[in-house]
This record gives sequence, structure tokens and C-alpha cells, in this order.
Amino acid sequence: MGKDKVQIFDTTLRDGEQVPGCKLDTKQKLVIAERLDNLGVDVIEAGFPISSPGDFKSVKEIAKLVRNATVCGLTRAVKKDIEVAADAIKMAKRPRIHTGIGTSDSHIKYKFNSTKEKIIERAVEAVAYAKSFVDDVEFYAEDAGRTDNEYLAQVCEAVIKAGATVLNIPDTTGYCLPEEYGAKMKYLKEHVQGIDRAILSCHCHNDLGLATANSIAGVINGARQIECTINGIGERAGNTSLEEVVMILRQHPYLNLDTDINSKLLYDTSQMVSQKMGMPVQPNKAIVGSNAFAHSSGIHQDGVIKQRETYEIIDPQDVGVNESSIVLTARSGRAALAYRAKNVGYELTKLQLDSVYENFLKFADRKKEIVDEDIHEIVETSNISIKSLA
Amino acid sequence: MGKDKVQIFDTTLRDGEQVPGCKLDTKQKLVIAERLDNLGVDVIEAGFPISSPGDFKSVKEIAKLVRNATVCGLTRAVKKDIEVAADAIKMAKRPRIHTGIGTSDSHIKYKFNSTKEKIIERAVEAVAYAKSFVDDVEFYAEDAGRTDNEYLAQVCEAVIKAGATVLNIPDTTGYCLPEEYGAKMKYLKEHVQGIDRAILSCHCHNDLGLATANSIAGVINGARQIECTINGIGERAGNTSLEEVVMILRQHPYLNLDTDINSKLLYDTSQMVSQKMGMPVQPNKAIVGSNAFAHSSGIHQDGVIKQRETYEIIDPQDVGVNESSIVLTARSGRAALAYRAKNVGYELTKLQLDSVYENFLKFADRKKEIVDEDIHEIVETSNISIKSLA
Repeated sequence: MGKDKVQIFDTTLRDGEQVPGCKLDTKQKLVIAERLDNLGVDVIEAGFPISSPGDFKSVKEIAKLVRNATVCGLTRAVKKDIEVAADAIKMAKRPRIHTGIGTSDSHIKYKFNSTKEKIIERAVEAVAYAKSFVDDVEFYAEDAGRTDNEYLAQVCEAVIKAGATVLNIPDTTGYCLPEEYGAKMKYLKEHVQGIDRAILSCHCHNDLGLATANSIAGVINGARQIECTINGIGERAGNTSLEEVVMILRQHPYLNLDTDINSKLLYDTSQMVSQKMGMPVQPNKAIVGSNAFAHSSGIHQDGVIKQRETYEIIDPQDVGVNESSIVLTARSGRAALAYRAKNVGYELTKLQLDSVYENFLKFADRKKEIVDEDIHEIVETSNISIKSLA
Repeated sequence: MGKDKVQIFDTTLRDGEQVPGCKLDTKQKLVIAERLDNLGVDVIEAGFPISSPGDFKSVKEIAKLVRNATVCGLTRAVKKDIEVAADAIKMAKRPRIHTGIGTSDSHIKYKFNSTKEKIIERAVEAVAYAKSFVDDVEFYAEDAGRTDNEYLAQVCEAVIKAGATVLNIPDTTGYCLPEEYGAKMKYLKEHVQGIDRAILSCHCHNDLGLATANSIAGVINGARQIECTINGIGERAGNTSLEEVVMILRQHPYLNLDTDINSKLLYDTSQMVSQKMGMPVQPNKAIVGSNAFAHSSGIHQDGVIKQRETYEIIDPQDVGVNESSIVLTARSGRAALAYRAKNVGYELTKLQLDSVYENFLKFADRKKEIVDEDIHEIVETSNISIKSLA
């Protein structure tokens, strides 16, 4: 039986680009959009057209360029926003308008000074108006993470009737725990009339480090779209990391869920976005960090040298990284030293290795990382007579 | 009723320091250890004493220095390791030996070329031997994440009988989903005889971005210790982030779990560790990243200016950050511009603001971030007559 498909909605160019200092020009955005299209994302959120003339232009150019993915523009539940977005995406092969409004008590009271009934009216009006321009209308219930489920279900039901094809349930503040976010999706799946006519979508923020886990809880409980960004970039602590959710689904086949992402392009795409945005990827970032496949402790290195799967669950090549690396530090053991020494031409006997290892530890206590050149020096200054294979 | 306490076991100086390029000298380790003690961690894993003479020395000095926390040394299930660790920590007020062995099929077969029965024997011997030096012995079942629960329960039962006070259940490869890791803890809590005499501990890796979520699932299901590092640093994709799990428990009081961490020291501690290890914290890192409390999109800024809680779940001061910031970019709206303009001395009327905002958007489309100096230029080149308050 085939797996259920989870759509990947990439918002690197919208929610990702909201990061202070990450602004891209139209040309840069086009390069990234083309790469996202090749990567296999289902939807590219290209921008928020009403927000500035530059953003309008970028969305318009992306709409013209992209061949496979749906191109989406963000709006508030405001007529003018929707008109401008519709104009920006009108050349897209598959255009989508993404409109919505805050539904939590905090948003209704402090942001809109409104009531629950009036918010539903505005939501329905916005969706119906967007629907007059395009077939594919996604509705976001902002701060859904803190919206009570009963009211949220009413909102969802109303906008589905108005024509919404996708229901975005954002944990806008990144507050939810996975159990809670998953239960919210399950509640909606079970209580919203007409839910089979729409796709539930996860949009999670990482303020407590839970965006990825929440998105996975969402799809386990019935959502079929994840909104995410390359490298998890985004406002504050960022959004769900595209590379993480894609690889989690691929590594857990029993969930019976998969995406259309070509994972071999993940590492290069991560590097490209990082470079264009001037936003470094921390070395210990999951999947795409420079250390993600680097082993330095003796216990781990020994295991990896004997059998890769002992410490690595992902084959680095599956995400476009050439190989896992055995890094030599003071924490490395004999197996790693022997492995690296062999790579540079020394086949050491067990006795030779004991002696070279002792010398190695003295070096390593003074130096953060031992490189190939050091290995030659270490072997040559050890108290052994060796036969170099080089 | 008081909350249940979750112990924080910090392994920044052991698992964290295994990162390529992050090696610290003894002096640096002492400064960090003292800070961790002040931060309120319950256990400091100070190193792996047998791994190198430098590491032995560091553990020994840390053991002498630390006043409140337990000081712990790592070992394999090997007599010599345990003797060296016992020697290194003997001056500690509260010494702990952390010993263990791999329990998954992959580890038993490929790493040890052994059998399930022999592994239990070695585990029991190691714990009993460690117990001859100290009262407090923690046992780790390496790769517990991929060990079947029934066998894992047998191992746990055996080492509790041998005197283990803490049972570390590591998801060594970072493979588990939160539901699965939580279920593992629940299984052990329900099936291991004598489990009330020991504390279950979560030790999660972030290879799929799930370390934090897995640790939280662990304590919800009965674990009472979390092993973690500052900034989530650690081999490959790193360990559970201390700051994330601490703030998740604090922000979800209904879980009825808390730690003794003084959260106001989190930001400074993060900066100190990052600087000493030369390992940058990415700007969108949860809790301690430089953007964690920065708002740049118009919709969010408007909300935060009206009421902080609209978009922020943590008061930045609670983690030692002075204030949330309203960053001006092309995505900012009128509310943010008015707010920042007022801060530098311009009280704009609604009509003035419209005109200044139009001028602002032209500037912002060309520039990544608008700083105070730019605001003066923007206001002064706008087509209005303004009365400066400056």
C-alpha cells in the first residue's frame, strides 16, 4: 500500500525572510525559488505582496518562474491585501492565496478589539473574496495554538463552507507541547463538518525548541501539510526545519507518511540559503550542520568504524553529504587513530599503535583537532620503527 | 502541592566538549563548572577521566572546586576506567560514577561481539565495582533508544540490584519519536522491579531535531533527570538544550514539574559557553539566540506593541535578556515605525505617519535593517512638516 503524502509548504521566502538582516533582493529570491521547485516542495510561499513594492515584485516574478510548485501569497483578512496578492500571483501555474486572522482570546481582545462572532464573519468574508480570484485558498487561524478547540472548530467549519481548501493551524508563539498540538489536529479532524474537503496544515514556531516535534505530532494526527523553512530560519527562534521533518518521515517508514522531497539536495540547498541570507547554520544543526555526521569521541568512532549504523541513523549521502568523518581529538580512541593513520599511509601493528597513541594523546591535549599533517609528525616522533605504506 | 523536581544533569563539559574544535583547557572548564554550579544544575558531568591525562586533571580540579552540584565522571564498563574515574572525583562533595554499556542488538553484535546475557553480567559487575568507590552510581544503557523494552527492563532490574541509583536511558543515535521515547520510560516505570529505588534519566541526541521533545516526553512519563548541555552543544547534531527543557517546564505549570535552575542566568551562561568553545549560537536558537526576542514583521510588531503576550510567551527578562526588540525592516508596519520614531523623538500624527511610512518603505526595500540614524533621515526627507521632540 502506498504511503500517504504530506505536502511540504516552504515559507523560507516569506516567514523565513522576516528575520532581521536576512532580506533578499528579487534576483536572490528567484534563485532560491527555482531551487525549492527542484527540491520538490509542493508550495512556495513567495512573500506578503502588500507589505512593500519590492515584495510585490518578487512574488510576481516567482509566480512567472516556478514550473511545478504552487505559488502562494500571504494576506491579512483585508480586501486590499487580497487584491494585491491576487495580482501578484496571477501568472502562476498553480496560484494560492493565504489569508487569515487571529482567533485566540488574546488576539481577538488586544489586537482586534473584536468578538468571536465578528472574527468568524471577517474570516468568511476574506476567504470568499480570495475565492473570487483563485480556486486554491488557504486560511490561517493565527495563534490557533492558544485558541480553544471548540471555537477553532467553528472557525474551520465556517471557512470550509466559504471555500477554503487548506486550514493552517499555526502555533504562532511556539507554546504547544507535541501531545497538545497533535490532540488539536485530532479534535479538528473529528469535529469539523466537511473536514474531508480541506487539508489541515501544521505551522509551528520554535520558541521552545518544539517546532519539529509539533509538526510531526500534527501529521501523525491527521494533518497533511507542513509549513517549514530551510534551516528552520524565521522570526524569533524560527520555524519548523524542512530538512528535519522530511528526514523524520523517511526514517520512520512505519508512520506510512512521506513527502516528494529529493533529500539528496538538502545539504546544498541549506548551504545556498545560509549563504544568500548571511545566516550561519550552527555546526550542530540536525541534518545539515557541518558536524551532523562528524564523530569525535573514541567510543563512537570505534563503533562507526566497525559498522556505520551503530551511531548513524542516516546515510550522509542521502542528504547530499559525501561521507561521515572521523575527527581526531583528545577524546578519540585507538581505533580512530589507526583508521586515520591508515588513510594517510601507515599500517600500524597493535604494539606500534599503543606507542603512537600515547604520543597522540600528548599532542591532542594541546590541540583542538589533529589533522593529517599532525598524524605524520605524531607517527614519526613516536618511539617505534614503522614501515610507511605511503 | 509542591511540584515534582526534575534534576538537571549538565554534560556540557563531557558530551558537549566532544565537539570537534570545542576542546577546553582545565582553566576554562573550571570557570564553566563554577557557573553551572551557580546556575543551579544538580549534576555536572565533568569529563571522561580515562580518555586523556588532560581530562583526568580537569575532572579532578572540578571535583575540588564545585560546592553544590554532584560531580560525575564517565566510564565504560571497564575496571580500569572505573578506578581512574573514582580517583578523579574522590575530592568531590557529592561524587558520582557514570558507567554503562551498549544494550541494543546493533551494539551487542557489532561493537561487543557478545550476547545479551554477557552484557548484563558486565553491566552488573561494572555497577558493583563502581559502588565499591562511591554510593551514587549512574548506569547508562547505551543505544537504549533502539533496545527492545523487555530486555532493557531486565538490564535495569539487574543494575538496580547491583546498586545503581540512576538509570540513564540514552537515545544515542537520536532516532526516537517523542511518543516512542515516552512510552519507553513508562514501560520501565511499570515493569522494572525496584524502580522506585532509582531515578530514570533522559539522555537524548538531536540528530532529527527531537532531543528536547523526547526529554520532555520522558519526564512526563516518569523520568526525573534530564541530561543536557548549554546551547544543545554536543557531538554530531548535539544534545538536549538545557535552556529549552528548563523553560518548557516553567512555561507549562500544569505539568507539575520544575527544576532548580535560576533562569535569569541562562542568557549569560549561553554566551559564556559559546565564547569559550568558539562555537556560535545561531541567531534563531530558541531561548538564547540573538533573535529569540526580536520582532520584525509588521503584524507581529503591531501585536507586541499593543500587548507583549500576543506574540511572546516568555518574558525576556526571565532568561536574562533585557528586552524584546522591535526591528525595522521592509516587513514592518506603521505601528512599529511610529514606536521607533517616538523612541528617537518624533511624535507623528496619523497623516504624518502615512507619508513617513511611504518614504520608509523605499529605504527598507534597499536596506536589510533600518537603524535609529536612518529614522532621522527618513523623517527629514519625508514630505511633511514635523515638530521634532528631540
